[in-house]
Amino acid sequence: MSKYFSRKQGELKAYVPGEQPRNVQKFIKLNTNESPFPPAPEVVNAVAAAAQKANLYCDPTMLKLREDLAGIYGYTPEYFTLGNGSDELLSFAFLAFCNQEIGAAYADVTYGFYSVLSRLYATDTKIVPLDAQYCINPEDYAGLGRTIFIANPNAPTGIALTRLQIESILQANPDNVVIIDQAYVDFGAECAIPLVEKYDNLLVINTFSKSRSFAGGRVGFAVAQPALIADLETVRNSINPYNVNSLSQAAAHAILQHNDYYMQNCKVVARNRVYLTKQLDALGFTTLPSLTNFVFTKHSSISGEQLYQKLKEHAILVRYFDAPGICDFCRITVGTKEQVDALLDVIRSIL
Amino acid sequence: MSKYFSRKQGELKAYVPGEQPRNVQKFIKLNTNESPFPPAPEVVNAVAAAAQKANLYCDPTMLKLREDLAGIYGYTPEYFTLGNGSDELLSFAFLAFCNQEIGAAYADVTYGFYSVLSRLYATDTKIVPLDAQYCINPEDYAGLGRTIFIANPNAPTGIALTRLQIESILQANPDNVVIIDQAYVDFGAECAIPLVEKYDNLLVINTFSKSRSFAGGRVGFAVAQPALIADLETVRNSINPYNVNSLSQAAAHAILQHNDYYMQNCKVVARNRVYLTKQLDALGFTTLPSLTNFVFTKHSSISGEQLYQKLKEHAILVRYFDAPGICDFCRITVGTKEQVDALLDVIRSIL
Repeated sequence: MSKYFSRKQGELKAYVPGEQPRNVQKFIKLNTNESPFPPAPEVVNAVAAAAQKANLYCDPTMLKLREDLAGIYGYTPEYFTLGNGSDELLSFAFLAFCNQEIGAAYADVTYGFYSVLSRLYATDTKIVPLDAQYCINPEDYAGLGRTIFIANPNAPTGIALTRLQIESILQANPDNVVIIDQAYVDFGAECAIPLVEKYDNLLVINTFSKSRSFAGGRVGFAVAQPALIADLETVRNSINPYNVNSLSQAAAHAILQHNDYYMQNCKVVARNRVYLTKQLDALGFTTLPSLTNFVFTKHSSISGEQLYQKLKEHAILVRYFDAPGICDFCRITVGTKEQVDALLDVIRSIL
Repeated sequence: MSKYFSRKQGELKAYVPGEQPRNVQKFIKLNTNESPFPPAPEVVNAVAAAAQKANLYCDPTMLKLREDLAGIYGYTPEYFTLGNGSDELLSFAFLAFCNQEIGAAYADVTYGFYSVLSRLYATDTKIVPLDAQYCINPEDYAGLGRTIFIANPNAPTGIALTRLQIESILQANPDNVVIIDQAYVDFGAECAIPLVEKYDNLLVINTFSKSRSFAGGRVGFAVAQPALIADLETVRNSINPYNVNSLSQAAAHAILQHNDYYMQNCKVVARNRVYLTKQLDALGFTTLPSLTNFVFTKHSSISGEQLYQKLKEHAILVRYFDAPGICDFCRITVGTKEQVDALLDVIRSIL
């Protein structure tokens, strides 16, 4: 920290992403919920074409992508905007829908970026505990008078609310924005986007990182009624109107043109998740009921940290959170069948 | 604006980028200071290779690029960080070095984003007028007790401070950070990066957008002593640790491996700028002494807005700013010799 830093010591607590080892090919990487499937070949071609004219700025309105998304999800382009990953959209949402008067609310166990952004923007925050089954209880979110951030399915638990439960939260907070951050929704949970039509206080945030094999390309998108999107756009254009670069715009367009390939991959991952969970059960693990591309699992005879360390020694990376209530667990990304079997073999040898 | 927007009406004033027409091939585009030269072929190959593994996250530490930059500019990788364009780095700088107590200062005529960010982050701001020759006077910045943002060369005037003048501002503000935003420095001005060694209050912000033909790819970089960079990193990791995506990281690496190509292009543009300026002089224009890839020019017989409109009718886009003190001018990007000659032909026909 320099003497010039305007933030008090300890005021900020940066997000710590999962390890991205330089010698990545040496590991089976099941620690950051990436897709094991590479982007389809059309993406490579689209990106190469875009690179040839990267001396020109990208389209700051991202119109083509907003049209693509409208074609897939319904609505019109005015219902969409995009970010440099969904993390950037979450940051925009804090700037647009929280301030000194309007605080935030989110679960005690959820995506770590909500608390990081809360601190960054000095947002007054209410932390809502999960219930004993690690579930979000919609009733706990009734009339909080705050902007609500819900990861659905939640991370790192993997547990999802139903669309009806989301509706109950929306109805109980008509004067506040409810952000449904559904990074993992394509792996089996109920999508909140159809609710946008009915609720002017709903902002749905999505990402290409997991289900669309594009974590490295950083594309997230938001869906909401045009007035909410206009607010996000005002913030976006006050920070970085060219926030999604021309390479990623071209790639995302190619991805949406071949959406079926990616949705098919999600089904494979979902099948592998069921298989992995059953095998872990047989080995004595307790695994939360995930609808994502990861499982959150613990074993009575080995701590989360020990399992993480032992797996790393065997060149398998998983994620361990040194946090109250969840330090018994490891979060393990669901990869290909081959990766799952390799993981299980190592776990058997460790136990 | 929705009823949920946390910002008061008129509190934010988004940046308005230059036009990016969809039918861009119909225009000679001299309105957003892009390079007329496409990226070198190596960039296309690098990006295509990166796209094939874009299912994996990019390196959040951007180590390879920081090593590349250290190789070109001196210092060690700890002296560098990168942004999703230099605009994002400016935003980080506001968050890191301004707050309720520490205000900002910048020129009345300068890069429009400083005032946009000032409003966004509710920063108390001192606006410092240019002198009668449209120059920044270093003495006006002595001991302001504020974080100082200086575009050098300045935009849209194109006029540069010398390195000695920058030093005088640094020396006169030992308790405050001075940001030298040198987006256009490679076209002829004195680079501030060598001063980093000597001044712990200097933050130099740079971009690949202009001199390195990569406006569409959105890569900016900051150079400062490690303590200042660490502050920016804390902010960056509180917003978006994966802010420069894997495609742009790969492209930027390829660009820096072939740095000479881009620096050679800058010399061509600088020659064309001298030629354009002379020809405009002969046509009765008054052109400010630019060290950038654009000229800021006015003519007694036609207003800036009229010239902009007439050129647009002839399929040439330039930039006009409807702002006090500069509305007589047009900002014209210096393109290839062919583009410059086409522009001059049209201007002759208009006059």
